[in-house]
Amino acid sequence: MTEANISDACIPVGVSGRHVHLSREHLDALFGAGYELTKKKDLSQPGQFASDETVDIMTTKGAFTRVRILGPVRKETQIELALTDAVKLGITPPIRDSGNVAGSPGVVLVGPNGTITLEQGAIAALRHIHMTPADAKRFGVKDKDVVRVECPGERAMIMGEVLVRVNDQYALELHVDTDEGNASCLKTGQKVRIV
Amino acid sequence: MTEANISDACIPVGVSGRHVHLSREHLDALFGAGYELTKKKDLSQPGQFASDETVDIMTTKGAFTRVRILGPVRKETQIELALTDAVKLGITPPIRDSGNVAGSPGVVLVGPNGTITLEQGAIAALRHIHMTPADAKRFGVKDKDVVRVECPGERAMIMGEVLVRVNDQYALELHVDTDEGNASCLKTGQKVRIV
Repeated sequence: MTEANISDACIPVGVSGRHVHLSREHLDALFGAGYELTKKKDLSQPGQFASDETVDIMTTKGAFTRVRILGPVRKETQIELALTDAVKLGITPPIRDSGNVAGSPGVVLVGPNGTITLEQGAIAALRHIHMTPADAKRFGVKDKDVVRVECPGERAMIMGEVLVRVNDQYALELHVDTDEGNASCLKTGQKVRIV
Repeated sequence: MTEANISDACIPVGVSGRHVHLSREHLDALFGAGYELTKKKDLSQPGQFASDETVDIMTTKGAFTRVRILGPVRKETQIELALTDAVKLGITPPIRDSGNVAGSPGVVLVGPNGTITLEQGAIAALRHIHMTPADAKRFGVKDKDVVRVECPGERAMIMGEVLVRVNDQYALELHVDTDEGNASCLKTGQKVRIV
């Protein structure tokens, strides 16, 4: 491999803390009818943003206050937690691809305009790589492939079971949660490679 | 490899939550002069035990209450935290082999008899395998070797930078912290292999 190719083969890392995606209905219930999220900053995936707004997450066992809401609104409300977070809440979220919340545990969300009790929605994100079709061609992978990623450093590891997600609206990035980031000492912006 | 050999090659996992080891001097300061820890249960490593006693850990940024003290007393006080815990406390512990606390961040410990401000002591444990000389011979490794461990399952991975610690008083076990356990979906008692 040439130097240029080695550099090309690197995938930037994004470590995600716990966060919430809300449906239109739930945003209304928590913040008031017709409420619009305020963009705090753009995220690496085009069109996605961290909002100024936060909600509190509660269960009978524990709570997290001021958890960031990511926009825009989605079809279904989804609470993304690290498994460490889930232990504190006393729930066992499944490890799932984003958007797949069927049968997952519910939590209570508390906003300035109201409280909602979710029947489901809490998941631990399945680690995944966002990429464009051009990236996929370059890496020799396709949408829904499961790959292994080599993470260098003080807690070097090869992460298995990494889902490839291909869409022309995506920006190249490996998404892991805070448990995975801490276990591998990876930080947002570092580079990894598919092996 | 025969079936028997494959089984022999498996190493049981122990996932450690945050905990505290105290020196004699610090046990005296926190619980009273001459205080003796009460054994709650034996740990897998011979002679080591979880005590009934707990302390609160505080920094200017956060706190954890009722953190378990492991006995017996040690030469130096050591606070073992997952990096997720450290974020909550606002400190950055180094990743260290047990007993190597030089230059690590301090915390405040609060016990029933007093409070102590440590100059150092907080580390994130370097993942490691305890084994006997007989185990080491079987695995073809020696004390202080660094190996890779294959972790099967839903979040399968190969953990690198795993320190081998050999002593005839040890019981065979891979020790990881809660971040590492959650990132790999490993639970105490599961089996992994050196690769």
